[in-house]
Amino acid sequence: MATMKIAVAAVAGTPAAAVGTRSAAATETARLCASSAQGLGLSTFVGLRAGSNASRGVTPRVRPLKAENSSVRAASSVETVEKTDVAVVEKSVNTIRFLAIDAVEKANSGHPGLPMGCAPMGHILYDEVMKYNPKNPYWFNRDRFVLSAGHGCMLQYALLHLAGYDSVTTEDLKQFRQWGSKTPGHPENFETPGVEVTTGPLGMGIANAVGLALAESNLAARFNKPDAKIVDHYTYCILGDGCNMEGISNEAASLAGHWGLGKLICLYDDNHISIDGDTDIAFTESVDRRFDALGWHTIWVQNGNDDYDAIRAAIEEAKSVTDKPTMIKVTTTIGYGSPNKANSYAVHGAALGTKEVDATRQNLKWDHEPFFVPEEVKSHWSKHIDLGSKLESDWEAALEAYSKSYPEEAAEFKQLISLELPAGWDTSLPAFTPEDAGDATRNLSQRCLNALARTLPGLIGGSADLASSNMTLMKMFGDYQKSTPGERNVRFGVREQAMGAICNGILLHRSGLIPYCATFFIFTDYLRSAMRISALSEAGVIYVMTHDSIGLGEDGPTHQPIEHLASFRAMPQMLMFRPADGNETSGAYKVAVQNRTRPSTLALSRQKLPNLAGTSIDNVALGGYKLSCNSTDNKPDLIILATGSELEIAAKAADIIRGEGKTVRVVSFVCWELYEEQSAEYKESVLPKAVTARVSIEAGSTFGWERYVGLKGKSIGIDRFGASAPAGTLYKEFGFTVENLLAKAKEVMGA
Amino acid sequence: MATMKIAVAAVAGTPAAAVGTRSAAATETARLCASSAQGLGLSTFVGLRAGSNASRGVTPRVRPLKAENSSVRAASSVETVEKTDVAVVEKSVNTIRFLAIDAVEKANSGHPGLPMGCAPMGHILYDEVMKYNPKNPYWFNRDRFVLSAGHGCMLQYALLHLAGYDSVTTEDLKQFRQWGSKTPGHPENFETPGVEVTTGPLGMGIANAVGLALAESNLAARFNKPDAKIVDHYTYCILGDGCNMEGISNEAASLAGHWGLGKLICLYDDNHISIDGDTDIAFTESVDRRFDALGWHTIWVQNGNDDYDAIRAAIEEAKSVTDKPTMIKVTTTIGYGSPNKANSYAVHGAALGTKEVDATRQNLKWDHEPFFVPEEVKSHWSKHIDLGSKLESDWEAALEAYSKSYPEEAAEFKQLISLELPAGWDTSLPAFTPEDAGDATRNLSQRCLNALARTLPGLIGGSADLASSNMTLMKMFGDYQKSTPGERNVRFGVREQAMGAICNGILLHRSGLIPYCATFFIFTDYLRSAMRISALSEAGVIYVMTHDSIGLGEDGPTHQPIEHLASFRAMPQMLMFRPADGNETSGAYKVAVQNRTRPSTLALSRQKLPNLAGTSIDNVALGGYKLSCNSTDNKPDLIILATGSELEIAAKAADIIRGEGKTVRVVSFVCWELYEEQSAEYKESVLPKAVTARVSIEAGSTFGWERYVGLKGKSIGIDRFGASAPAGTLYKEFGFTVENLLAKAKEVMGA
Repeated sequence: MATMKIAVAAVAGTPAAAVGTRSAAATETARLCASSAQGLGLSTFVGLRAGSNASRGVTPRVRPLKAENSSVRAASSVETVEKTDVAVVEKSVNTIRFLAIDAVEKANSGHPGLPMGCAPMGHILYDEVMKYNPKNPYWFNRDRFVLSAGHGCMLQYALLHLAGYDSVTTEDLKQFRQWGSKTPGHPENFETPGVEVTTGPLGMGIANAVGLALAESNLAARFNKPDAKIVDHYTYCILGDGCNMEGISNEAASLAGHWGLGKLICLYDDNHISIDGDTDIAFTESVDRRFDALGWHTIWVQNGNDDYDAIRAAIEEAKSVTDKPTMIKVTTTIGYGSPNKANSYAVHGAALGTKEVDATRQNLKWDHEPFFVPEEVKSHWSKHIDLGSKLESDWEAALEAYSKSYPEEAAEFKQLISLELPAGWDTSLPAFTPEDAGDATRNLSQRCLNALARTLPGLIGGSADLASSNMTLMKMFGDYQKSTPGERNVRFGVREQAMGAICNGILLHRSGLIPYCATFFIFTDYLRSAMRISALSEAGVIYVMTHDSIGLGEDGPTHQPIEHLASFRAMPQMLMFRPADGNETSGAYKVAVQNRTRPSTLALSRQKLPNLAGTSIDNVALGGYKLSCNSTDNKPDLIILATGSELEIAAKAADIIRGEGKTVRVVSFVCWELYEEQSAEYKESVLPKAVTARVSIEAGSTFGWERYVGLKGKSIGIDRFGASAPAGTLYKEFGFTVENLLAKAKEVMGA
Repeated sequence: MATMKIAVAAVAGTPAAAVGTRSAAATETARLCASSAQGLGLSTFVGLRAGSNASRGVTPRVRPLKAENSSVRAASSVETVEKTDVAVVEKSVNTIRFLAIDAVEKANSGHPGLPMGCAPMGHILYDEVMKYNPKNPYWFNRDRFVLSAGHGCMLQYALLHLAGYDSVTTEDLKQFRQWGSKTPGHPENFETPGVEVTTGPLGMGIANAVGLALAESNLAARFNKPDAKIVDHYTYCILGDGCNMEGISNEAASLAGHWGLGKLICLYDDNHISIDGDTDIAFTESVDRRFDALGWHTIWVQNGNDDYDAIRAAIEEAKSVTDKPTMIKVTTTIGYGSPNKANSYAVHGAALGTKEVDATRQNLKWDHEPFFVPEEVKSHWSKHIDLGSKLESDWEAALEAYSKSYPEEAAEFKQLISLELPAGWDTSLPAFTPEDAGDATRNLSQRCLNALARTLPGLIGGSADLASSNMTLMKMFGDYQKSTPGERNVRFGVREQAMGAICNGILLHRSGLIPYCATFFIFTDYLRSAMRISALSEAGVIYVMTHDSIGLGEDGPTHQPIEHLASFRAMPQMLMFRPADGNETSGAYKVAVQNRTRPSTLALSRQKLPNLAGTSIDNVALGGYKLSCNSTDNKPDLIILATGSELEIAAKAADIIRGEGKTVRVVSFVCWELYEEQSAEYKESVLPKAVTARVSIEAGSTFGWERYVGLKGKSIGIDRFGASAPAGTLYKEFGFTVENLLAKAKEVMGA
């Protein structure tokens, strides 16, 4: 048994007492994980390529941080710890490393560098720190983990495998990055139970983690009681240099600091290498001091390669800081263990190659076949099956007790986490007749949100500093803030990209929360990456996008969407709505809420629109439907297709043409994706093939409309950038008028 | 004449000696601006709404910063200054305020709050600090100014008007936000000479400013001589709270700090108000400390409302710090002067209303008609005509002297700033025959870039940490770095959004630099906003986007573009290329370089592609062209349309069908936008209306292909997300095979 001094770095100014103390939660975890008390790992690692200290003794090379570049100072606290079972921890860590090495090698594709460097922190998180039940990856009260540096997914797959998740068997590891496998090239929640969110685009995972932590804090504030903490978990995130360079991570971190998300604990894999080489070529800021400025608690683990106790102590310290999120900078060596490729970009994103794998095996004394897991490692990790089961059953018992003491709250809570919508949730949506006063669809949207807020306890959301323009406040609720985390209006500030990713995190918390978020439609350009991940990761976020066309007027072309409708119609699994009036806005919300695994984008007008005859809430689900038609034989002389604010123009033009003795059908194309899902018969009933005289009108790009108007039809749209002028002027100048529609209609009818 | 003590705040740790010293450049400016020495402004402003100190004396209410929230401490240096002519400065500042108020009022639309608060710093910049020639807005050596908070554009219009720019007359001010005016709702460089870049989307302007400053530093390093500084100007930027919340600004600021852009001086309008109200609801980070961590020099002007000398001293201090960019936090009151709306969101983005305009006139003792400019203000500003003319002629003389001493450098410099491409620039582009070995278009792109680097002295660019994947290094050059600013490979780090906006700034420096930037095509989702501003602001940036389809393989759906080609085809003024081989890659570069006012996006393959018979460099300019056809009468039995990596499949399938006795045409659709610009005759020669048997094949969304295949044609594409597997497997599973194309071809031919 070795007795060692270990150094724990803490931020200058942190009370020394805080370091090494254990919070109640940490103590509980320690109790539950009693069998996992592990020793101080001392690597026998030798032979690092550049600047290695290995030849000088047991301390592996750790890149020294520049003094001027960090506010974090080492070792404000030193504790003496006695530890045992070092050998098992080391074996487990090397198992993780080699599972990653072997899987990448077999696939001849992937990223071995991060798993090799992060295996120690990964081991500690999954074996010693996190609460989860491997046999029920969706157990509500589990700790959440996000690998923001998603390319390192073999780390997570190896951990899920060791922890006993059925989703990642040895066979799955061998199928890494292959067609149909559960182990794709980046972590995908929809493929692999145990993976919480889909990552890969850098910086987005930490924003997801902020969303997960927000969800926990909101539900904890709403449902926990002094004697019953039924919502109580941490969110952990491993992120890399790339994540920290991305603007989205700064946006999310600024919000996390503002919100004081004390149960968010991030581990920054500070390995100083990115694809282009040493991060010094582009990244010399002080990350520590930046996070400090953002209101985070910061800790530096100087040797993340094998100072296990320093990692443990840092996580404990992070837990003890309850009013701030914590960023633990863990300095590691990318590709740790590879004699010739460690600490270089060569190990970041490519297989090591047979020769270097052999050298690494020799270096780390790993004399095993590929994909080998030593018996003592298996045996060590096997406890998590029972442990997880007990964690869940203890929580179930606590929830039952809670249900007796607080039946009303328990009912709402259970309803939420059932992921079912409450009965009658949609009855609150307003319906309209043409006699009702017209309004902008952004205002109608606000009526819907406020109606739904009464019937959907899961509704939570807000705007990127445009609440009064997007009309997104739920008037009966206050702001979600550090001091009022149970409220449901979220103030995202001017941070669109993080807003979207945070909403993905809120939704993928899988607790029945229904996040919506809002900005001007044009600024989907800022959060498009997050919206795409909503679509890919089956996250039914509701995107409330107002000021949907040149109809916004004077703000001009920097603010006027043109190609945006087309760009989202082309995106898989995204429902793109452009409602025309009150009924269609309610209908869009109805479908959006029903679709919990598919995101919806609502493009809403700034300007007032009339309630039209022929719209209905339920028809929106058809995507495209007959608003009006005076032909009796499904052979009208003309079909006019329109969406949103131009449906009014279509209706007016149709009336005039009908007055001239023609038969005209007006079709509202409120959601193309839903229309595409209808039967061929239905589509023929709406757009009969025989009728080729078709005109579309929409205040956006004509791109894509050929699908419905065909080569003989015409599309009125705008295929250039807009201009700064009053909306009425723009509509006239750009041809969105009844007169122009009549002219085009006559052209296609050959009249 | 008043003698006053004024306080200049400086960062703790800044040598006191640095405060108040004048750099050589500042001294020169002072000399040139000798007639503009102005006094300390003391506002007689009274009546601020909330928390006003006005009733207690001359000091207007300035929001106290929270001590824990700022590393900036006040008044580490105090100097005593004697000043005169306070009255004229005050009048000028109030002129700016009321021009903004009146223009917004007349338009009944716009943002008066920022101009009212920023008028003092605006006045000082344009009247006392900046070098420019109002009669030649494009004079090369002018200081650049960016209003990153673009909604406050009336500030800039008022300043351009006072400074004597012909682009903004009184009539233009009266036409603010009207159809066809030179004064649109946000600053637009393509509408208003004197405006350098187009802003509005928040946070992007400061990234543009980083690009402008980079351009200056690069050219200065390349062309200046110890005895001749022909490139020597500052870049100024005013940004707001919203800009500082956006992730893009953090990305850009991190790079600016890394690059040590000492001639970039930003003024942060710290007014504590955004659209949703007090910024405290979402923005409580310490901006100062964050910028400090990013390697900036930071200064705090505590009273930006009327402590003119503090603003002056801060700018002087900023100039004295030559190895770091400077962020001057200027605490102001939004809507300064409005008795009932100042310091509230009500003044941010709406006209004040007649009543409040009157009250503001009374409050600021501005007893004038709308759009009035007092004679003494006119007279005061009139000096800038002669001053500007002298600045330019002095510089021209210096350039002439330089030309004699350094004829070779002068020739290259003059060539660059002529904005003409050098003769024979395109002869370096490689041409290929089918016998040449195939290669990935990303590799062919690298050959083009390296060829062009030899013939285009303006070529400069790089990748967002994917240089070795995007293949974007110019091998004969080193890295643009703080110590080597004359080099031309730019290392952007993992910061896609800033990368695009920085390239816009480099291009709109208008000095002949031709910026390119690169990442994976999927990550256009991160920089789409910047790409759109390229298109809108006529900035011919070249976007090198590799890994252009599911053909990238194992990285999986988070990395596989699907809808991206369609989304850029729908974007106005963007040339979207997807070259198929070596000739088409060279052709795409040829068109991209020629288009200096239109950006180009090149989607390039990761995987190897053969050089095809029938491709040519010059045909790319046609957008779509016949690759091969065995019909003699423009009536082939079948037309196959394809782009990029699928053109090979199209060619193979065509050969097989021809072998069966049919006539088949293969059309390469390398750039839809260019095809659309061709004559009707040309289009008929490529896609004859009579031939409706058409099939398209492209490894991307089918969205939009109906335009060319019609309702009777078929499109092979992928309208779902991709998957993680080897590229060959994906191509097979998703139907990108000769067999599938043959099957579809037979369907459309009715065979």
